[in-house]
Amino acid sequence: MRAEILSVGTELLLGQITDTNAVFLSRDLAARGIDVMHRVTVGDNMGRAVEAFRTALGRADVVVAIGGLGPTEDDITKEAASEACGVALVNDPESESTLRAFFERRGIAFHEGNLKQALKPEHGVNLKNPNGTAPGCVFDLGDRAVICLPGPPNELIPMWTDEAVPWLSARGYTPAEVLRSRTLRFVGIGESLLEPKVKDLLACRNPTVAPYAKTGEVHLRISAKAPDEKTAMDLIAGKEAQIRERAGEWLYGIDDETLEMVTVRLCIAGGLKIATAESCTGGLIASRITDVPGSSETFVEGLVSYANEAKTDLLGVPAGLIERHGAVSEDVALAMAEGARKRAGADIAVADTGIAGPGGGTPDKPVGLVWIAVSTAKGARAERNLFAGSRETVKLRASQSALALLRKTALEEF
Amino acid sequence: MRAEILSVGTELLLGQITDTNAVFLSRDLAARGIDVMHRVTVGDNMGRAVEAFRTALGRADVVVAIGGLGPTEDDITKEAASEACGVALVNDPESESTLRAFFERRGIAFHEGNLKQALKPEHGVNLKNPNGTAPGCVFDLGDRAVICLPGPPNELIPMWTDEAVPWLSARGYTPAEVLRSRTLRFVGIGESLLEPKVKDLLACRNPTVAPYAKTGEVHLRISAKAPDEKTAMDLIAGKEAQIRERAGEWLYGIDDETLEMVTVRLCIAGGLKIATAESCTGGLIASRITDVPGSSETFVEGLVSYANEAKTDLLGVPAGLIERHGAVSEDVALAMAEGARKRAGADIAVADTGIAGPGGGTPDKPVGLVWIAVSTAKGARAERNLFAGSRETVKLRASQSALALLRKTALEEF
Repeated sequence: MRAEILSVGTELLLGQITDTNAVFLSRDLAARGIDVMHRVTVGDNMGRAVEAFRTALGRADVVVAIGGLGPTEDDITKEAASEACGVALVNDPESESTLRAFFERRGIAFHEGNLKQALKPEHGVNLKNPNGTAPGCVFDLGDRAVICLPGPPNELIPMWTDEAVPWLSARGYTPAEVLRSRTLRFVGIGESLLEPKVKDLLACRNPTVAPYAKTGEVHLRISAKAPDEKTAMDLIAGKEAQIRERAGEWLYGIDDETLEMVTVRLCIAGGLKIATAESCTGGLIASRITDVPGSSETFVEGLVSYANEAKTDLLGVPAGLIERHGAVSEDVALAMAEGARKRAGADIAVADTGIAGPGGGTPDKPVGLVWIAVSTAKGARAERNLFAGSRETVKLRASQSALALLRKTALEEF
Repeated sequence: MRAEILSVGTELLLGQITDTNAVFLSRDLAARGIDVMHRVTVGDNMGRAVEAFRTALGRADVVVAIGGLGPTEDDITKEAASEACGVALVNDPESESTLRAFFERRGIAFHEGNLKQALKPEHGVNLKNPNGTAPGCVFDLGDRAVICLPGPPNELIPMWTDEAVPWLSARGYTPAEVLRSRTLRFVGIGESLLEPKVKDLLACRNPTVAPYAKTGEVHLRISAKAPDEKTAMDLIAGKEAQIRERAGEWLYGIDDETLEMVTVRLCIAGGLKIATAESCTGGLIASRITDVPGSSETFVEGLVSYANEAKTDLLGVPAGLIERHGAVSEDVALAMAEGARKRAGADIAVADTGIAGPGGGTPDKPVGLVWIAVSTAKGARAERNLFAGSRETVKLRASQSALALLRKTALEEF
């Protein structure tokens, strides 16, 4: 089965919005084992839209069109599909009464222009839209189908999942074979060091293993094709076991688990109280920790000691230490972590001090130099890092290393 | 002039990455007055790539291809363009020596396979890539051109701006008419209140005015077409003056100026020292302030007092006040701001306390309730907000309101 995604909207061609719908559908179709061979975007122009539908129908079994289902003159997708398919649009009393009821509930006047939205393909069905006015629709050509979905993602996603996919499955468009994948997330090891450890696995065909370098972490995605879900997941589990054996010590999470999520969960499970003392990350570590729902169970307080006086006053870093070694130094990082832990009465504290740039670097202490320290009742340790990139990238990489060190220490010591 | 954007990459069709390059090029081409009529994505497949190039050449003057310029077998873009254009690829000694030098500088062994990247169109030029190994290229067909750019955005963007655009301009592909735009950024007023104030301007044709709702702020983009830059900018200035007259009090920045940027600049100019005391935003305000280069001149310290004890210990909020009014209350917000300002010896301090969700809400104090306070030597004031959205959205909206209040107070009082 082959699908083609056709996005309709001049605002897309002007770059005013990013087509996240096409990304969602691409990923979802791939997961259902339907190959997407082409993705096309055209503006709100009848001639070009009709031509794009014709081209797509010439090379795909299913054409999924996005956007242009509204009531205005610019909204031409359904008419264009109708012309390209040679299937008329007819009035649909059910869609009309749903539409009228929608307007009534919101106390908005119903214009006859809105009736356009209630039309349905003569051969095909309309798809319900509980989240907006525009119903979607399917043009059913027997051996091929055109599915039209509304542009707002909060309308498109449920309509696709709850209405369009069941229609496709009932008609046998979704293949017997399923594709499943699982992402393993690594921190503390770069792509150039992780890849050689799994190089032979990257060459396998089923499951496939693909590396993705992100800022401050690396992902390996395992994807398996199989006749059924269980077989696919078993194939993935086998490959995952091999990878864990070789690089398990750097693996921190699966799929959508972020580093802050697993760190917060670990500390909650261990009954630990966390404190932070940030200089170069400027509050980013605390903000990432508090992005996690429930983090108030483990996070006590965070201190952003940007000025040297704040390091001395808030964290009890001796002024002499800063004078002797400079604010960006191993000793100051260690003193910050210890000071934060004691001040907050926390079990574990992480601290950083560095030069985020773009200014402030020296030959001895260049932009990107960041000392990260962690302190527990058992002692403190610090790591020296040299990060590349813009100010925001240095902050992000430093927060990533700080969370990784926090997690590693919590795993080892508690 | 018509352009078509052709993205090449199976990872795009699988939805593994979002095509931000196509969005960048769409926006940039529109700004240069070149119409993009189609955007197409194909996988790393020679047959389909050649067909896509042929179709694009049949309807566009300039085809801009993205990705697939690497050294591996999957990288087929240049070969596909060569076949579709009927223009051979030949060795380019200059690109080869640049490539060899690049490898040598990084101490990486040069493989003969990399030589593929040094090929150039027989009719056309290669485009320099100071940020990676793959040069881009232009196939010059006389009346039409195909431009191939590398996939990584940090390589594509400078190559497009510094190499490809000058080539297009020299050959007369960029139109005599220029399109210029300017974005006005508003905070503290929602789209539904701003739009009616400028409704008549939204209907104008040149310049056009278009509203964009963002999280916690609204943008109005003014775009003008004119024979030359100065006339376009004058048209924009006239429209901007009208808008400022009606909604100037909420306008905080222009184009890429962020709220944290203008706030930090304002405080530096006024010689002010800032402190923050955050509860529900968890460090996000401090992190946004310290995203701005040079913020160490004005930002002294930030306190993230997540636990009640931290509010009492760090900020001197009386425990009795928290007991009487609850941690999420006007009185506690005011006491936090005052406490932070005095502790840090700052001129101005901003504080927040609220319920970011998803848990923790009550009928009296629902999820999204956030008190924001600001304190100076002249006094303190607080604002009650009720924000909609996820935990991260509530944090972002709250940080936005806090920065807006900080800026407003600094403008009024200093």
